[in-house]
Amino acid sequence: MKIVSGGVTAPKGFKAAGAHVGLKRKRKDLAILLSDVDATVAGVFTTNVVKGAPVIWTQKVTSNDSPIRAVVVNSGHANSCTGPQGYQHCVQMAESAAKAIGIAPEEVAIASTGFIGVPIPIDKIVAGLPVVASMLNSSLSAGTSAAEAIRTTDQFTKETAIQLELNGKVVTIGGMAKGSGMVHPNMATMLAFITSDINISKELLLAALKESVATTYNMISVDGDTSTNDMAIAMCNGLAGNTSIVDRDDESYQLFVQALHSINENLAKAVARDGEGATKFVEVSIVGGECAEDAQKLAKSVVSSSLVKTALFGQDANWGRVMAALGKGGVLFDPARLSIGFESEAGVLALMECGTPLSVDSHAARKVLSEKDIRINIDLMAGASAARAWGCDLSYDYVRINGAYRP
Amino acid sequence: MKIVSGGVTAPKGFKAAGAHVGLKRKRKDLAILLSDVDATVAGVFTTNVVKGAPVIWTQKVTSNDSPIRAVVVNSGHANSCTGPQGYQHCVQMAESAAKAIGIAPEEVAIASTGFIGVPIPIDKIVAGLPVVASMLNSSLSAGTSAAEAIRTTDQFTKETAIQLELNGKVVTIGGMAKGSGMVHPNMATMLAFITSDINISKELLLAALKESVATTYNMISVDGDTSTNDMAIAMCNGLAGNTSIVDRDDESYQLFVQALHSINENLAKAVARDGEGATKFVEVSIVGGECAEDAQKLAKSVVSSSLVKTALFGQDANWGRVMAALGKGGVLFDPARLSIGFESEAGVLALMECGTPLSVDSHAARKVLSEKDIRINIDLMAGASAARAWGCDLSYDYVRINGAYRP
Repeated sequence: MKIVSGGVTAPKGFKAAGAHVGLKRKRKDLAILLSDVDATVAGVFTTNVVKGAPVIWTQKVTSNDSPIRAVVVNSGHANSCTGPQGYQHCVQMAESAAKAIGIAPEEVAIASTGFIGVPIPIDKIVAGLPVVASMLNSSLSAGTSAAEAIRTTDQFTKETAIQLELNGKVVTIGGMAKGSGMVHPNMATMLAFITSDINISKELLLAALKESVATTYNMISVDGDTSTNDMAIAMCNGLAGNTSIVDRDDESYQLFVQALHSINENLAKAVARDGEGATKFVEVSIVGGECAEDAQKLAKSVVSSSLVKTALFGQDANWGRVMAALGKGGVLFDPARLSIGFESEAGVLALMECGTPLSVDSHAARKVLSEKDIRINIDLMAGASAARAWGCDLSYDYVRINGAYRP
Repeated sequence: MKIVSGGVTAPKGFKAAGAHVGLKRKRKDLAILLSDVDATVAGVFTTNVVKGAPVIWTQKVTSNDSPIRAVVVNSGHANSCTGPQGYQHCVQMAESAAKAIGIAPEEVAIASTGFIGVPIPIDKIVAGLPVVASMLNSSLSAGTSAAEAIRTTDQFTKETAIQLELNGKVVTIGGMAKGSGMVHPNMATMLAFITSDINISKELLLAALKESVATTYNMISVDGDTSTNDMAIAMCNGLAGNTSIVDRDDESYQLFVQALHSINENLAKAVARDGEGATKFVEVSIVGGECAEDAQKLAKSVVSSSLVKTALFGQDANWGRVMAALGKGGVLFDPARLSIGFESEAGVLALMECGTPLSVDSHAARKVLSEKDIRINIDLMAGASAARAWGCDLSYDYVRINGAYRP
């Protein structure tokens, strides 16, 4: 298994394009992702009761056994909370894209991200789709172009690719994602698109995607808000030529799950690192949990705490707030067995051991906390389960971006 | 029922005092509240698995049938996450206070608020308690002094009192509370202390307190963090001379519940209004819920959303974020029946009706949102249940207060 260049166009038989069609002021805002041949598809979607029109459409076209060919993604407008008219706009997007590419509307998945509650400028999208479709090509830079077009407040583009060998065939997986506010996925994620030339059954693709999402995108939090438009879509077109994976016990399946997980973890961490206003990247690592579910809940509770996040922004090793955040996580544990430490490139800081606070050298603490990447280590001493969650600090910029964001 | 001056010393037979003993730099930091005679007591405590030493002590001394006489509250240090030594310090506080007043340590409830994870300066408290005890008196200003001493980042003192007549006897209820960060009570609250000269059984006092806390302190949110030290304590000494209330169907009990609720709602709103960094006070009002529990969950989800809070700070009537926050509230509802509006002294703003967005005049919207008190009205059209939740916006100052708070 090795990391290779590129993103969604790294696997065989995928084309992409991204361009500016006028939804945002200057930057690219419309992307198409196309498989040359029918692709098996799996999707995981937001658990928010309020679902954007694109989520409703894409759930429909990916839930049956039919393959899909394309994904259309626009940024700038989320087409969410837009009523029946919003859904009609979404259908219009699928129809226009299908016409421009020469496929059926049901073969087109749709994702939208941006302002909610505002009608999407459908005319600009309908006019723009043929232009973007005419730019579709399989170069790595075309993948990057698409990854650029799906950004909203993201500070950097998120794409990654991995290669592995399955029974003598080279299989490639690529992915792109965007954050970076309203990120507190629950079951699904912000937007993530995975492509692969692997040959795999729909059932196993969905199983692998769900398993991986639970411990990657679902373990990041930027602001505790679950979007109405989150989705992760995986498209696999089989062009690698490997024997189709249909058995969960097949070693190839396990290898694919590992590779897919690596792609998703990379993208999830990139989204956390690029959280709105973030000045620090935080990993919360829990060991000694009674079960994985408990450890996950606790890790998520710490990474989501506003008080932990502001303490990190203030470069303060405030393990008391970490302990309080653990305590509100909805899981019983024994505070008297708890150990807590902070860690960064500058060193390791033990703060509490088995429920007893340790004396801390404030100079050493400040040095550890001044780094950009901070890890919070927690040992529950209650079992053998572990979990990791990723997030960022809470800064003035988060408030600025979300309090004064209208153009 | 009428509002009267004062706070915890408004009822008969209560003394109070507050002074500076060196836990904070300059401001008052130690308070004592004393009933002249034995008082029936009820307490509601944090649901955080990690409980501060004072919570453990006070739960113990208030959970049996014995009356208590005094409450000692310090600000500056929370004595939480301080291990076995912290609990010893708490016992020492009770012993020192009991000695200074001339009662037993088990008759003293303790509450602490401030930094967590740092040993409490017990010597300063032990030296300060006799001084504060010597200042105890029953004037209204003594109550205010105590209310001042329990503040941490609070911008203003929170106290209130109400009088009612029960079978010809005048009964008074007084209260004081403090916020203003780490406020997202769950089952209990930040710190709230209620005094009354009413004569009531312990069982009914606890029932009334629990019922009232559920729809007052538990319906406010400042930052989504549940403290390790939250508590609400009610002391009733019977000096009003009313026939003891022992029956839930007694009309006097219903009147007491109403009055207590009014006290708690006043204090809870004051805590929300004084949320760390708050520039606006927000009431979320939900009607048309299928059941009260659902309506409460949804109101709490909206008032807690970082994206709704930053939008309010930005004076933006972003009802899309309100809708998204409803959707992540853990309650099923039909978005197509939803109505949402904003309201303030400057007017009423209808934004969505039965799932369809309305066109909004941006000038009118800005005028409504520029007020300090904002109300968000939501109709679920699913039943007859209602709920209200209170909070504040999320400002640069919240980040400053919590990211750079060390002296």
